[in-house]
Amino acid sequence: MADGFTPIAGDCTTPVGFLAGGGTCGLKASGRPDVGAIVSTRPATSAATFTSNLVKAAPVLVSREHLQVTGGRQRAIVFNSGNANAATGTQGLADARQMAFRFCDGPGSAHGVIVDEVFVASTGVIGVTLDMDRLGAGIAALSLTSDGGPRAVAAMMTTDTVPKASAASFEAHGRTVTVGGIAKGAAMIAPHMATMLAFVTTDAAVEPTFLQAALSRAVDSSFNMVIVDGDMSTNDTCFVIANGASWDGAPLDGSQEESAAFEGALGHVCGELARAMARDGEGSTKFIIVDVTGAATVADARRVARAIAGSNLTKAAVLGADPNWGRIACAAGYSGAPIDPNRLEVAIGGLTLVRDGVAIAYDAEAASNRMRGAEVQIAVGLHLGDATATAWGCDLTPEYVHLNSDYTT
Amino acid sequence: MADGFTPIAGDCTTPVGFLAGGGTCGLKASGRPDVGAIVSTRPATSAATFTSNLVKAAPVLVSREHLQVTGGRQRAIVFNSGNANAATGTQGLADARQMAFRFCDGPGSAHGVIVDEVFVASTGVIGVTLDMDRLGAGIAALSLTSDGGPRAVAAMMTTDTVPKASAASFEAHGRTVTVGGIAKGAAMIAPHMATMLAFVTTDAAVEPTFLQAALSRAVDSSFNMVIVDGDMSTNDTCFVIANGASWDGAPLDGSQEESAAFEGALGHVCGELARAMARDGEGSTKFIIVDVTGAATVADARRVARAIAGSNLTKAAVLGADPNWGRIACAAGYSGAPIDPNRLEVAIGGLTLVRDGVAIAYDAEAASNRMRGAEVQIAVGLHLGDATATAWGCDLTPEYVHLNSDYTT
Repeated sequence: MADGFTPIAGDCTTPVGFLAGGGTCGLKASGRPDVGAIVSTRPATSAATFTSNLVKAAPVLVSREHLQVTGGRQRAIVFNSGNANAATGTQGLADARQMAFRFCDGPGSAHGVIVDEVFVASTGVIGVTLDMDRLGAGIAALSLTSDGGPRAVAAMMTTDTVPKASAASFEAHGRTVTVGGIAKGAAMIAPHMATMLAFVTTDAAVEPTFLQAALSRAVDSSFNMVIVDGDMSTNDTCFVIANGASWDGAPLDGSQEESAAFEGALGHVCGELARAMARDGEGSTKFIIVDVTGAATVADARRVARAIAGSNLTKAAVLGADPNWGRIACAAGYSGAPIDPNRLEVAIGGLTLVRDGVAIAYDAEAASNRMRGAEVQIAVGLHLGDATATAWGCDLTPEYVHLNSDYTT
Repeated sequence: MADGFTPIAGDCTTPVGFLAGGGTCGLKASGRPDVGAIVSTRPATSAATFTSNLVKAAPVLVSREHLQVTGGRQRAIVFNSGNANAATGTQGLADARQMAFRFCDGPGSAHGVIVDEVFVASTGVIGVTLDMDRLGAGIAALSLTSDGGPRAVAAMMTTDTVPKASAASFEAHGRTVTVGGIAKGAAMIAPHMATMLAFVTTDAAVEPTFLQAALSRAVDSSFNMVIVDGDMSTNDTCFVIANGASWDGAPLDGSQEESAAFEGALGHVCGELARAMARDGEGSTKFIIVDVTGAATVADARRVARAIAGSNLTKAAVLGADPNWGRIACAAGYSGAPIDPNRLEVAIGGLTLVRDGVAIAYDAEAASNRMRGAEVQIAVGLHLGDATATAWGCDLTPEYVHLNSDYTT
């Protein structure tokens, strides 16, 4: 138990009253699972965060519209992998709407789900129209069960090498309340385009306004701090659905004391999913943790942490266990945050290399040794204030380039 | 002859009244040339652009100070490669000043150069104090000649595989006037840290204020449009020195009709040097030209062009001759410039793939074939206005990662 909640093993069907499943409909040449859904068996509230890219995929536009129309009443998510349904024009919008319709007409009908209560999501290649014959049949054939989380997560994977799931619970009103989630996302070099999708469920009852605020805060310190850049792909999306199945009290609106435990559990689930993405960075061999302290503001700390975790040169140096702290200082310098080069402190794996902006006498071999494990920690002190932030990333490897040099053809 | 000037073969000693040279003083483990200088044999005016990184190397701080103190009267450049003299604190500042002093005390003394008339520049590893015993001796031993440009450019190379030089001439007042330049810079993935240095000379006479304005314009459309990102490393610098040795008239202040020819020649030299950097991108196999048209403003066009040329995923797709235009559209979408996804047009090598934001029927094999040469042209139409911009870059390769994963150790 930490901060009022307890990390547990689980996924999107660990909270009570959620069913999920996945299947294969032939969108992927590999023949791997490519269609799935999650549904709450009872009415629910919802919230979402979407990509800030001006080129938004059709499912993003349709999900945002459903969210706005209902004021946060989504209770189902239907999704596919293998095709992002992005840059597909009016046909793409029609296809995204049809995904919701086919779900309501099929597996959703047993639960009385209507089209506006459905979120849709897609991930995969951009600019190719969905094969709705296959996808529609795949959605209709989905079997959703209370232990279907693993099948759902398998169906959302693209270049992910491991499924990503997390859960946490807390006590409220004498009951155990759970938050669970699944995610996909693995390409991560500095920019931008590899989609991250995260679907979070909870059996808490939560007012939509507070749910949106809590989700935005959780995303800011989790997905937005991984160098998958959450806010950059055409399809990036995080959904949360709260169905109240384990709740005995007024829906959370932020004023109750249980709010902190709920936000803690939500933040934990998002954080674990985000870190799992960084650990699974395409072609990566090492996980990078960048801790920034002493910033004037949290926004500054985040900027510096993200710039360092996103620097190709820093990432390449981590691959080579090269304690090239100059690249770290340089990334801090171009991050956009105000820094004082003469106060900069840099440590790698707990070994301080730089103080007051200048290298101190350190053992280069010892510094390199701190970069040889599967996790490399970079700590940067700005000495300008009290704000902190952490970003996560991975090393840059030749394998990443191979993976991304022949994707569509 | 184009726009009033003529591209010619040449370098920083092609303009009359400039001497240059290079040597080896032992800063590089490889034993390659690592120290050099350029001097005007007569008084001159000068201008400079420097990195916008908050972490500025000592030579940047010292050169900027000399520029400010004199109001643009520099007539010499002394430089080293193998050590960037960045993040070196007060010792670094003293060393940069000493570089200028040793030059004036040595090869500069024959021309009466004083310390404030010297620009200094360094490139190489960050955070290591200069070995001033070696560098001071190297500066003192420099032999500067009127055909020394090639020796100077050799001494500024780091990971560059080819020397970079360019020149152009124009006629004014019955004389042939020349602009020449040399540069180094080769690491280029998205922004960041690889230093670019460019040293430009001219035997035109130019007022310092106009020289600065002309240089800033030239840099904006050349070095700042290459994905070396000129404005990001701790050491990025472009110097220009104008000595008037071939000028018979009032110094150019922007009002004379010769101003256009001068700006054309200066822009040509900077552009050629910038494109040479992109062609020599670390580990790269292909040169990428990104032409953006139809933007509302030039700033928007530049943002979109730079985002595309800087996208790791686009660069990796170019390596693989993969016409993955979705990555191009996505980069346009996160560039920060306002775009309308439904008006977007994308062509590769002259073959249109996307119109009104949607893929048109095209032959994927033919599109891939347009990406198999040494040059790949990407054209993006925004259909929002009349502004245009061009950015240059290179593909992302496994070799880039190898080169950058073991640099200091």
